[in-house]
Amino acid sequence: MYGEIITIGDELISGRTLDLNARYAAGRLTASGLRVSRITSVGDDRIMVSRTLSKALESSRFVIITGGLGPTDDDMTNEIVAAALNRSLCLDRQMLDRIKRHIEAKGIELTPSIEKMAWLPEGSRIINPDGAMCGCCIIEQGVRLYFLPGIPDQMRMLLDNFVLPEILSLYEAVPSVGQNILKLYGVKEHQIAETIKAIRSETGDVVLGFYPHFPENHITLSLSGADEPAVVSEIQRVENLIRRLLDPFIFASGNQDMEEAIGRQLIDKSLTISVAESCTGGLIGHRLTNVPGSSAYFKGGVVTYSNQSKMDLIDVKEETLETYGAVSDQTVREMAQGLRKYFNTDLTLAVTGIAGPDGGGPEKPVGTVYIGLSAGNQIFSERYRFWGDRGQIKLEISTMALDWVRRYINGDPFIPGV
Amino acid sequence: MYGEIITIGDELISGRTLDLNARYAAGRLTASGLRVSRITSVGDDRIMVSRTLSKALESSRFVIITGGLGPTDDDMTNEIVAAALNRSLCLDRQMLDRIKRHIEAKGIELTPSIEKMAWLPEGSRIINPDGAMCGCCIIEQGVRLYFLPGIPDQMRMLLDNFVLPEILSLYEAVPSVGQNILKLYGVKEHQIAETIKAIRSETGDVVLGFYPHFPENHITLSLSGADEPAVVSEIQRVENLIRRLLDPFIFASGNQDMEEAIGRQLIDKSLTISVAESCTGGLIGHRLTNVPGSSAYFKGGVVTYSNQSKMDLIDVKEETLETYGAVSDQTVREMAQGLRKYFNTDLTLAVTGIAGPDGGGPEKPVGTVYIGLSAGNQIFSERYRFWGDRGQIKLEISTMALDWVRRYINGDPFIPGV
Repeated sequence: MYGEIITIGDELISGRTLDLNARYAAGRLTASGLRVSRITSVGDDRIMVSRTLSKALESSRFVIITGGLGPTDDDMTNEIVAAALNRSLCLDRQMLDRIKRHIEAKGIELTPSIEKMAWLPEGSRIINPDGAMCGCCIIEQGVRLYFLPGIPDQMRMLLDNFVLPEILSLYEAVPSVGQNILKLYGVKEHQIAETIKAIRSETGDVVLGFYPHFPENHITLSLSGADEPAVVSEIQRVENLIRRLLDPFIFASGNQDMEEAIGRQLIDKSLTISVAESCTGGLIGHRLTNVPGSSAYFKGGVVTYSNQSKMDLIDVKEETLETYGAVSDQTVREMAQGLRKYFNTDLTLAVTGIAGPDGGGPEKPVGTVYIGLSAGNQIFSERYRFWGDRGQIKLEISTMALDWVRRYINGDPFIPGV
Repeated sequence: MYGEIITIGDELISGRTLDLNARYAAGRLTASGLRVSRITSVGDDRIMVSRTLSKALESSRFVIITGGLGPTDDDMTNEIVAAALNRSLCLDRQMLDRIKRHIEAKGIELTPSIEKMAWLPEGSRIINPDGAMCGCCIIEQGVRLYFLPGIPDQMRMLLDNFVLPEILSLYEAVPSVGQNILKLYGVKEHQIAETIKAIRSETGDVVLGFYPHFPENHITLSLSGADEPAVVSEIQRVENLIRRLLDPFIFASGNQDMEEAIGRQLIDKSLTISVAESCTGGLIGHRLTNVPGSSAYFKGGVVTYSNQSKMDLIDVKEETLETYGAVSDQTVREMAQGLRKYFNTDLTLAVTGIAGPDGGGPEKPVGTVYIGLSAGNQIFSERYRFWGDRGQIKLEISTMALDWVRRYINGDPFIPGV
């Protein structure tokens, strides 16, 4: 069942805004067993919207269109669509009532620009007429055109609760689509490519995809078929083939991310953690606390961005800083240990490094970082070198530090340093 | 001068990957005075790529095409393009030499799948043949088709250094395009809409756009014309009109973000800062340290995610926590003051709140937060209520906290709390 997505807005084709709506809709449709054949973004432009719509009518069974439904002058989707489909624009009473209720609650007056939102192409059916937000559907040449607002939250709510169920109910024979994503860190792209090649003769109809997702690498497995349990078990079989070769690098699968995977592990083992961050500035704590319920295992940390704060807060010795420098094995170990002054956690994690663009030298270039982890009486540390801009280096340091926690709990060796 | 962008890859139309390449290319082309009329994403699919290419040849002067040039089986762009344009695929010696040099340096052997990358549609011209990464250009029916790799860093490098200069050199009469973005926080969308309406009769040919960018709101001003100084001064004139009405809410313009704007202010006033974070988990420190050189003013902080750590680290009184709770005015003030034990900074900033989804109650629902700022002998605090998911609440708290710093330095009143 092929459909496509059209997103409308000058902000999209000028690069001012990232098109999150298209991605969300594409992901939801694909996960539901529907196929997206094309995503097109055009500006608030009569000719381009009209051309794109005609093209979509030629080859798709349904089209999700977002944007251009608001009150401002550049919101012209209804008008353009009416012209493109040779339909009149009509004042829709149901839509007008809905808008009136909505704005009255906010104490806003009905102006012509707000009323404009109720002028819809003839034959439009309103989706979710009782709710605060809504879209509409037009059937043209047997193709269903769904018009949704460009505001991401509204678009998502309407897509998930109204549009997707409707499309799925119309097309009963949607094949079951199984998909999984394996997320890896610490393995080179060409190793993954070689692994995929090595198992190629055994993967059957499962389609493998490989996508770098800095600093992670993701492998996708997908398969469609009529028999859902068979699809699921076939994907599992191929996942096992991959795990046989790359298991230590796989930190999560599906929608789980690194911090959720670690949170799960810490909860399972009843372990707690605290962090001492230098170059990452708080990013590790931020990531750990993105997980709801993380207060069960994350107790807090310090951001010791200056030498003075390393001494004052977590007792890094002045002598250590003078002799070895703030970015050194000795310092990171003292940081991890110093945290214990405040945090009675099972694990303490510390990082110190040079995120750049300045501050590097011949012995410790930009991207040099030390990671330290203390657990009971044990303390581990390692030096790494990362590449990229400041944001990438901070991100990769935080990922490597979190990967240390995962590997420590699993009893796997840490990724070797330099 | 109209062009368009085509991005190729199953990962794009299935929603697995966000299309950062299209956005980057769109932004760079627009900023250079070129117009993007359409962005189309299609899968690794013969028919769709071929159709999309034919369509582009009808209406564009140049097309940027990314993706599908790699060594794996689903990288089929060259083959599809050759078929679509009715050209032969030829082994390009220059390309092959370049690839050989590149893989030899990495100790990788030349395999058929790597050699495939050197089979290009007849008449292809290689862009950047000496570099480690390259793309190619084909002229078809007078339209320039630029094929670039899908790996973002490579695509960007080639676009910026080769493709854009070439396009600009071909079309001399590109009009000067002026653009500015004003970034606002703390003002409601409808107030911005009203402001734009109020000045409409005075904005001349400057096109105003308004884009929510949670939790910020952005206003764009754009104008094209032959006379660059006139374009710049006209945009400035309209910016002044907006500033007359909304100035206290404008925290930055152009590419600057909130943390850069504050960094600039702190440097200008020779002020230093430290932070005590609870619900944000380190996000404020992370944002402050995203700015290169931030160690000049950001000295560090603490992440006191548990009650115990609030007491142990920054001397929040047990009695305060028991009487008023961790999320309270009293606690946030003690947090801001307690930081001074370690950080001799001009400003100390503290936040404590409930990011959700759990932990809320009738008196302090999810999204409740207290912000505290101490400066010399002064201490300020306020209660706010934010909405959204955990990520949105954390983000908005960090933005409001940074906005406090900006407003304090400017001598502006803080945004009123609840």
